[in-house]
Amino acid sequence: MGNTFGHLFRVTTFGESHGPAVGAVIDGCPPLLSLEEQDLQKELDRRRPGQSSLTSQRREADRAEILSGVFEGRTLGTPIAVLVRNTDAKPQDYEEVRRAYRPSHADYTYQSKYGIRAWIGGGRASARETVGRVAAGAIAQKLLREHCGTQVLSYVTQVQSIKAKIDHRKIDRASVERTPIRCPDPQAAKEMIEQIDAARKDGDSLGGVVESVVRRVPPGLGEPVFDKLEADLAKALLSLPACKGFEIGSGFSGTLMTGSSHNDPFYSSDGRIHTRTNHSGGIQGGISNGETIIIRAAFKPTATILKEQETVDISGNPTTIKARGRHDPCVLPRAVPLVDAMVALVITDHFLLQSVTSHNGRGDKTYE
Amino acid sequence: MGNTFGHLFRVTTFGESHGPAVGAVIDGCPPLLSLEEQDLQKELDRRRPGQSSLTSQRREADRAEILSGVFEGRTLGTPIAVLVRNTDAKPQDYEEVRRAYRPSHADYTYQSKYGIRAWIGGGRASARETVGRVAAGAIAQKLLREHCGTQVLSYVTQVQSIKAKIDHRKIDRASVERTPIRCPDPQAAKEMIEQIDAARKDGDSLGGVVESVVRRVPPGLGEPVFDKLEADLAKALLSLPACKGFEIGSGFSGTLMTGSSHNDPFYSSDGRIHTRTNHSGGIQGGISNGETIIIRAAFKPTATILKEQETVDISGNPTTIKARGRHDPCVLPRAVPLVDAMVALVITDHFLLQSVTSHNGRGDKTYE
Amino acid sequence: MGNTFGHLFRVTTFGESHGPAVGAVIDGCPPLLSLEEQDLQKELDRRRPGQSSLTSQRREADRAEILSGVFEGRTLGTPIAVLVRNTDAKPQDYEEVRRAYRPSHADYTYQSKYGIRAWIGGGRASARETVGRVAAGAIAQKLLREHCGTQVLSYVTQVQSIKAKIDHRKIDRASVERTPIRCPDPQAAKEMIEQIDAARKDGDSLGGVVESVVRRVPPGLGEPVFDKLEADLAKALLSLPACKGFEIGSGFSGTLMTGSSHNDPFYSSDGRIHTRTNHSGGIQGGISNGETIIIRAAFKPTATILKEQETVDISGNPTTIKARGRHDPCVLPRAVPLVDAMVALVITDHFLLQSVTSHNGRGDKTYE
Amino acid sequence: MGNTFGHLFRVTTFGESHGPAVGAVIDGCPPLLSLEEQDLQKELDRRRPGQSSLTSQRREADRAEILSGVFEGRTLGTPIAVLVRNTDAKPQDYEEVRRAYRPSHADYTYQSKYGIRAWIGGGRASARETVGRVAAGAIAQKLLREHCGTQVLSYVTQVQSIKAKIDHRKIDRASVERTPIRCPDPQAAKEMIEQIDAARKDGDSLGGVVESVVRRVPPGLGEPVFDKLEADLAKALLSLPACKGFEIGSGFSGTLMTGSSHNDPFYSSDGRIHTRTNHSGGIQGGISNGETIIIRAAFKPTATILKEQETVDISGNPTTIKARGRHDPCVLPRAVPLVDAMVALVITDHFLLQSVTSHNGRGDKTYE
Repeated sequence: MGNTFGHLFRVTTFGESHGPAVGAVIDGCPPLLSLEEQDLQKELDRRRPGQSSLTSQRREADRAEILSGVFEGRTLGTPIAVLVRNTDAKPQDYEEVRRAYRPSHADYTYQSKYGIRAWIGGGRASARETVGRVAAGAIAQKLLREHCGTQVLSYVTQVQSIKAKIDHRKIDRASVERTPIRCPDPQAAKEMIEQIDAARKDGDSLGGVVESVVRRVPPGLGEPVFDKLEADLAKALLSLPACKGFEIGSGFSGTLMTGSSHNDPFYSSDGRIHTRTNHSGGIQGGISNGETIIIRAAFKPTATILKEQETVDISGNPTTIKARGRHDPCVLPRAVPLVDAMVALVITDHFLLQSVTSHNGRGDKTYE
Repeated sequence: MGNTFGHLFRVTTFGESHGPAVGAVIDGCPPLLSLEEQDLQKELDRRRPGQSSLTSQRREADRAEILSGVFEGRTLGTPIAVLVRNTDAKPQDYEEVRRAYRPSHADYTYQSKYGIRAWIGGGRASARETVGRVAAGAIAQKLLREHCGTQVLSYVTQVQSIKAKIDHRKIDRASVERTPIRCPDPQAAKEMIEQIDAARKDGDSLGGVVESVVRRVPPGLGEPVFDKLEADLAKALLSLPACKGFEIGSGFSGTLMTGSSHNDPFYSSDGRIHTRTNHSGGIQGGISNGETIIIRAAFKPTATILKEQETVDISGNPTTIKARGRHDPCVLPRAVPLVDAMVALVITDHFLLQSVTSHNGRGDKTYE
Repeated sequence: MGNTFGHLFRVTTFGESHGPAVGAVIDGCPPLLSLEEQDLQKELDRRRPGQSSLTSQRREADRAEILSGVFEGRTLGTPIAVLVRNTDAKPQDYEEVRRAYRPSHADYTYQSKYGIRAWIGGGRASARETVGRVAAGAIAQKLLREHCGTQVLSYVTQVQSIKAKIDHRKIDRASVERTPIRCPDPQAAKEMIEQIDAARKDGDSLGGVVESVVRRVPPGLGEPVFDKLEADLAKALLSLPACKGFEIGSGFSGTLMTGSSHNDPFYSSDGRIHTRTNHSGGIQGGISNGETIIIRAAFKPTATILKEQETVDISGNPTTIKARGRHDPCVLPRAVPLVDAMVALVITDHFLLQSVTSHNGRGDKTYE
Repeated sequence: MGNTFGHLFRVTTFGESHGPAVGAVIDGCPPLLSLEEQDLQKELDRRRPGQSSLTSQRREADRAEILSGVFEGRTLGTPIAVLVRNTDAKPQDYEEVRRAYRPSHADYTYQSKYGIRAWIGGGRASARETVGRVAAGAIAQKLLREHCGTQVLSYVTQVQSIKAKIDHRKIDRASVERTPIRCPDPQAAKEMIEQIDAARKDGDSLGGVVESVVRRVPPGLGEPVFDKLEADLAKALLSLPACKGFEIGSGFSGTLMTGSSHNDPFYSSDGRIHTRTNHSGGIQGGISNGETIIIRAAFKPTATILKEQETVDISGNPTTIKARGRHDPCVLPRAVPLVDAMVALVITDHFLLQSVTSHNGRGDKTYE
């Protein structure tokens, strides 16, 4: 249970980090979307390890194979199955994990829930599971681009205490990809990278914040009262490994304001209704209002560190553990494509939903 | 769409603020739970308006009637329908809302999505919808109490800039209910109340933070990879009116730590595995580890204020609007029972889920 | 669990036969549909007892109250809650049912599953539960009528050994309602009524077959491979009390044909593709082809009879039981509106689904 | 949409008949079940073509690869992905299908719904899709065997006009597999085979009926009012290609009986409650009563025949079509493992459901 995401654009991921393969089945993708493996590969390449000194040195080509749902270069409206083989598995790195629980990992909780765990490399709890999400997210992003011109753009705004200065209206995918940390503020990026390198040398790890904006969102996305757009976004991001917090618009800092300063005044321009400020973050009453959606996600420092730590073995006896193998000193740069993927999945899902639930369905068309 | 919450313990709410009634249907409640209307009333009384000068003066008895699912004082395992009639509706307070959109309310988004809106009192987008949630949450809290001794305890930790000092291990429902603001730190509570009264007199409103702890949680709750326990909690809270942020454990402040300081070391005691710290907030890899679950939700300042505000009318022409009628200068005190309800719904839902998905099922924690 | 039906047009029913009320919550009804209580009442009056000597003499006005989802005579796109109070309950008729299990009723299975049962009048297992379905079906039928001109028409084709001769292209709702048995073949209807009266006088009961046709069905309804249109229709009808069989098109008799005689040849006319025969029953590969949908449902003889029957008491000791109170000697006439309702729910649900899944969405409109 | 089946034991199938692969992802399989590829292969071998002159001569090894969810020979409680490569595809056989619609196939409905179709070999509508169902059903059957000793046994009872005489209490899997037609009545089997061979030589096809019994079913399976056990069984079977009808217990013939003869009297023996007759087919009020479940499914004659047939081309112009390639003159023998699979999926799903919804949960029938 729990391995499928979405109401109408439904993504089911499968795979353990050191099993034969990881992947996803995407059910609900509309027909006639032009799609090829390269569309998926672009996003998978942003996620895969070994991109820089900031990320794990595990060597995975992460080649995506589309097994179904595409015919002569276009989607059929049938399930799209995507397969990515695991190649660079090193079980020997995990002998210690077999006998003891890594602090703040899922080793203990999986063992206690399932009575068994794929102890090699974290199995299902490994970030490797997100390969399937990223493949699905690539399809969602293409769908949004072609069907409503909506764009999802995520980037790092904070690593530990270093905060970037970013005007989200002035950046694009290129300015995000310019640095290996995926922070469009070059000065902050430089400091973040230095801090991460220092942590890595120290065998330690860092956390931070990813911000995501969604531009050109059609008004009317979101299904109150429980499937509000921000509620599904919050679930999507909290389902990512290491995510500990979510904000939309003013978020926690909005609690310091008064209603009169927080409310977003409406005004009209070019025949559309806009808001002068956007403390709401593009969503009001659970439904998109057409303004840019702005959300943030907090990621804790990577649990895997090369320092000796206190823990217990599988029999509950005190022991210590020290990670070996290849790990990310900071998940932030690789978290960016994950956030892009999850946000795109939610927006796409609600784009399809509103074609049923809104009075004008797809593009201002009524039932009449 | 979007009016049902939960996987196995499924709650569907219905009702507009000024329609004939609000309520909920709860499907999936196990049989043989002793239940009477008074169990629901206790929680509804904590939610209803008019409790103090801090809350709306709308007078609603909010009497809950159980229409089905209970026979001779015990649940049947069939749907429990709960009905609460709306009595103190004052349409005349909303004439202005009919012609213009209130800033940071759902008037505009509902109109643009549905092509119609119950303009009297916010209709479905009114916090009055939460009556059904609270009734359902009361059943969930009783179920948790009787089936696994789990307790949900929520309280206000911040109003605008005033932060309370609270040791969550030392408080209980009584210390929360002691003040009308539902903050167990008496000194902070006093200042919060003064600040809210000042805002009310000024026709303005304030926001803040509610923290919620869940004690005696069985390990094994949560369904990775998408229905992780924290993901469903985040969705539950972000589905509440005015909620703009969610944190679990260390949350956003955890991003300032290093992995070596953030990781929670394991140790054994009284035959169980514990963690020395709890930055994880009681959940690791999406599954409860048996420690206390700690989460926080940010609530924005109430959108309804008695000051004149810039907006547009339903034809898009510039105008101003100034609320009349009865409103909460601060949602925090009434948000507490809502958070109790939503958290209880998620925990109960996952308690039922794990009886299927975990290797030992109801194991030691049977229903008898 | 199990009290909600539908993918996008979701109906949740609640209520026990002798509890305070029965009803339904309909979530997913599009906004701006004109709707009033009278629209529901018309169908409820076709379902309610006491219509003729053929049906139970229980006196229930079955007045429907709409609690939510409708504003100024039109649907809001929010949940529509419908309430029908139980008025003519006679617990004293069921004292025997308290101590023993009625053969071929749900008394034993409910007791063994839930450990409790509302022994008065069958509780949740009573046909009274279908009140909520009929109310929801009335909304679905209005939606179909107004949005795509689709019409559902059900009627009795067989009572015990009496088979009617009916050309479904030549009948309408009026010819069905002309006789209390709801069989549009007057001669067969006469014989059916006589046979039912004879069974009633004998304290016995009869079964039969209801046929349902759906006219002017848009091509493209149905979601292979599991939510095929016929699969959801089969589930819908088998979820009705006393239903033991389902057929579409040629059904069981089609097994006697050869492929060359069973296949439906395609031809073109007035710019549309038709089939010369319709052994497929209007659905091919799980998707409607635009021809009339034809299905049949078998209903067993009513389990409640006024004859002494062998059974066991709740302690498992041998005993006998003889029904008292008011019962239907034949469910067929009242089954007709139930079939109308369930078929309409399925068609409406898939009508909404295809607006997302088909390439031209609502009325030949693409994403562009 | 529509490619996932089940409430808790969820199966998602993917793949087109002539694409790279077909398969399934099974989410919700409990952990610690011993499982290897050979368990799946046994059932896949019963489904695959080329088993006898009665079935298509397409040569497919149908080798199942388990990609995830199994570790050291036991299930992890994570999704089990199964992959089967397509090897013996012969596109050239389908050139005609590219230009014209085959009568009573899904060519036209898929084209009209999706605006595109994988014209080679029927694509998603091909019976080849059922490979994933059979793999999933093999897991379900093993789970039932090990967790509650429940056995599903399906067999052919009718081919065209030839009806077998079978006492279902006296047969087993071996007696079903003894003949290539999978009919345990040797004399009837002989005649069926002759009739099918005659039809094949004539380029025609035949249909028939498959009966399925489920033995040692725990009482309490089924979730009224919509997810009744028979309702989910009906949906499961009607979702199979070529299925046109469903019956449980007395089915359509039960409509000829009176209530007094149809009701199943209760009696006690060896401390359990039984029924003297089983016209109910093992389910009462939507819940299993512990008796053997008996259902039947009607399968139409295979649509693909080697005779010239009237149809239209994709532009709607009149034309004729005559199948080439390799086809089944009768689907019945290969339908048997499909029915086994679908029935096992439903029973397993409800076995897991009742562990949540019934008062005694896994009670006596724990997973250990």
